[in-house]
Amino acid sequence: MTLRQRHLLGIEDLAPDEITAILDLADTYVDLNRSDVKHADALKGLTQINMFFENSTRTQASFELAGKRLGADVMNMAVGASSVKKGETLIDTALTLNAMHPDLLVIRHPNSGAPALLSEKVNCAVLNAGDGRHEHPTQALLDALTIRRAKGRLHRLTVAICGDIAHSRVARSNIWLLGKMESRIRLVGPATLMPSGAADWGVEVTDNMAEGLRDADVVMMLRLQKERMDGGFIPSEREYFHRYGLDAEKLSFAKDDAIVMHPGPMNRGVEIDGTIADDINRSVIQDQVEMGVAVRMAAMKLLVDARRAA
Amino acid sequence: MTLRQRHLLGIEDLAPDEITAILDLADTYVDLNRSDVKHADALKGLTQINMFFENSTRTQASFELAGKRLGADVMNMAVGASSVKKGETLIDTALTLNAMHPDLLVIRHPNSGAPALLSEKVNCAVLNAGDGRHEHPTQALLDALTIRRAKGRLHRLTVAICGDIAHSRVARSNIWLLGKMESRIRLVGPATLMPSGAADWGVEVTDNMAEGLRDADVVMMLRLQKERMDGGFIPSEREYFHRYGLDAEKLSFAKDDAIVMHPGPMNRGVEIDGTIADDINRSVIQDQVEMGVAVRMAAMKLLVDARRAA
Amino acid sequence: MTLRQRHLLGIEDLAPDEITAILDLADTYVDLNRSDVKHADALKGLTQINMFFENSTRTQASFELAGKRLGADVMNMAVGASSVKKGETLIDTALTLNAMHPDLLVIRHPNSGAPALLSEKVNCAVLNAGDGRHEHPTQALLDALTIRRAKGRLHRLTVAICGDIAHSRVARSNIWLLGKMESRIRLVGPATLMPSGAADWGVEVTDNMAEGLRDADVVMMLRLQKERMDGGFIPSEREYFHRYGLDAEKLSFAKDDAIVMHPGPMNRGVEIDGTIADDINRSVIQDQVEMGVAVRMAAMKLLVDARRAA
Repeated sequence: MTLRQRHLLGIEDLAPDEITAILDLADTYVDLNRSDVKHADALKGLTQINMFFENSTRTQASFELAGKRLGADVMNMAVGASSVKKGETLIDTALTLNAMHPDLLVIRHPNSGAPALLSEKVNCAVLNAGDGRHEHPTQALLDALTIRRAKGRLHRLTVAICGDIAHSRVARSNIWLLGKMESRIRLVGPATLMPSGAADWGVEVTDNMAEGLRDADVVMMLRLQKERMDGGFIPSEREYFHRYGLDAEKLSFAKDDAIVMHPGPMNRGVEIDGTIADDINRSVIQDQVEMGVAVRMAAMKLLVDARRAA
Repeated sequence: MTLRQRHLLGIEDLAPDEITAILDLADTYVDLNRSDVKHADALKGLTQINMFFENSTRTQASFELAGKRLGADVMNMAVGASSVKKGETLIDTALTLNAMHPDLLVIRHPNSGAPALLSEKVNCAVLNAGDGRHEHPTQALLDALTIRRAKGRLHRLTVAICGDIAHSRVARSNIWLLGKMESRIRLVGPATLMPSGAADWGVEVTDNMAEGLRDADVVMMLRLQKERMDGGFIPSEREYFHRYGLDAEKLSFAKDDAIVMHPGPMNRGVEIDGTIADDINRSVIQDQVEMGVAVRMAAMKLLVDARRAA
Repeated sequence: MTLRQRHLLGIEDLAPDEITAILDLADTYVDLNRSDVKHADALKGLTQINMFFENSTRTQASFELAGKRLGADVMNMAVGASSVKKGETLIDTALTLNAMHPDLLVIRHPNSGAPALLSEKVNCAVLNAGDGRHEHPTQALLDALTIRRAKGRLHRLTVAICGDIAHSRVARSNIWLLGKMESRIRLVGPATLMPSGAADWGVEVTDNMAEGLRDADVVMMLRLQKERMDGGFIPSEREYFHRYGLDAEKLSFAKDDAIVMHPGPMNRGVEIDGTIADDINRSVIQDQVEMGVAVRMAAMKLLVDARRAA
């Protein structure tokens, strides 16, 4: 099928069949990436520009490899460098890039809504690689692919999302996606890290890990930003780990075959015990990274196809 | 035709037929860049190295895309990083790169003449991407292509170049080019930003925008370096905009179909009113960026051809 | 022949026939790099990731060009950027990259042994691009290729390695390689820059340049880290140059056809007189850089072959 979307700004905009289309194509790219010759020509002759206004080794690397493996000409913009410092606005930067005729513009930006704003100004597909506290759609897609491959389905699962929900665009995108796919979501975290309106989102909310993880199929830990500790959101790393860090005891409340996820980079001993993170029978953290490249390849390919068909 | 030059160090060195050859080939690359598959193999198997000793998001991106779209292996040198910091001289850095057998070396450097110095030491084509206050030849070529496409010709036009002439290599390269192509040039700006010898250059000089823009076909605004304000060259941004910033009133002195140019990045409300910059009937600022990629593709292709033919 | 090694961690691990195999293949890549179309498809469809935890313009550029010229998809990790700063361990970073299915991982790291540690965690070939004071194997290989091409052989030569031996991984790798190839090694430098155990390494040790260079076939100068001067290892640059800097007088003790080497970047007037460095009859410093690209191409190609054959 063809995507109806022309950009990937958030999971909120995607219909279930579009999500499924991306995951299905991504499955084939997983095979490609595991093969001897991990290169295709699906984006050959096209130009991809990555603009990361926040540092992200992992996500930028994933998008860069995704584009290169599909044969695109990939360019990383040195933002933080001159033009932006020289006082140029985001829109002027975008218009400048647009005039160079990219086909795909990948943007990470500290402001929620920046990718959407950009998408109205340019002629190419915009992919949101994380904007403020809003969305991080490719993270939710890679999480979904990881879950689907581990559990065989995305519906009727119980997924516990744990930790700093309030500041997490990863949580937000995952809540959208899992909701659309008819899974049951539990948000677990201290009240200080829970968004105020969460009770109205059609999800269960708790500050108790035992309750939140009970019979869960998937335990999804979130990264804790260290600066939250200065901000008074939590008392200390040690206290946080004691109450919310995933260890064997807390994990025992989940189903015996529950999988453990983390978007990375991990703070071992804060959000998650190192032993659990490394337990290949439970942890799918490395799979998430692997699925990340495949999902980004699929999303870029389908956006280009959708534009060509239009 | 074949270029007689082996390097692109400045417009001063180019004959009119060489300028025309670059622009003619660039026209075909504009079409390529607008097509579905914006990739050719003209530089396949060749190596392009970009050395930017001054930050420039826009120019570096333009050269990088130009090379990648022609199939070159493109490498951006992290200058500002180790070797240079470790006290190595520019010449030693150049000799080191030269030993890696690049075919094209693109250099931006704060010192006037650095690219010329380099060109004497290496075996490959050197392209000047801006050197001190000396020249920025690809900027003048992209400006020329923009003008030629908008006006149908480069000769017998009246071009007003406005703002900080004294510190502008863009102005210098444009004066060379437009002079060679037999256009009439007016330099407009405050006396403190006018080079002392300008009156001897065969151009008209004025500090009055109404006078300078009268019946102009092209109004070319220059970027104002904010540090000029501390330097006592101009009293304030507000005062500068009042006297020299391009707004509708000042533009009304130019011809009705005059085009407005700016090399970017723009300081909106300082050199130029935002409304004018965005007016698609007057402003060709985005076209300039688009022409930039095409002109750089053409220049690199022709330099390689000239060397192969030699 | 096929390498028995699956990684290139140090010269210590290589047998003489493996060294010879790398140099033989590198000879063919020298020809390729000098040709009109300096590009092959030996690594096409493969992914190379460069992780430089220490800045190195020269070595990183050399590896990057080597991979691109062989058709690999090459990605430079922006280490120093987010993930590492975010407190992720080297191992977690490596596991993350490994999940993206690279075929070749090039790493420079300030800690001796970091590449070896990594190689136990990942599924791909790891190439050591310099680790602490331990080894810098591709530097020794490029030095060997340079010597072999100049002298026609690697055995029964007298090689003087001069300067800061104590802190030099370049010296260490060269001592391994030249020892394996049955050349005679002399270490020359002030006692403060000589490793304590050097006398037991089966090499000659002296603090006198005249003695050390007597009848040498190869004079290999090392880079002096300026910070050694603050550290009290040497009294001053001037004094150092006087006693250990290579000038015509000191070089006259070596054989008439002795070649002069330096790994770069050079401190002219400290380790070496500029006239000697530029003397094309004696200095092979530019050749070393040229051989660097070829040797890295060969090493990467042979490691990939060895894994495919396994």
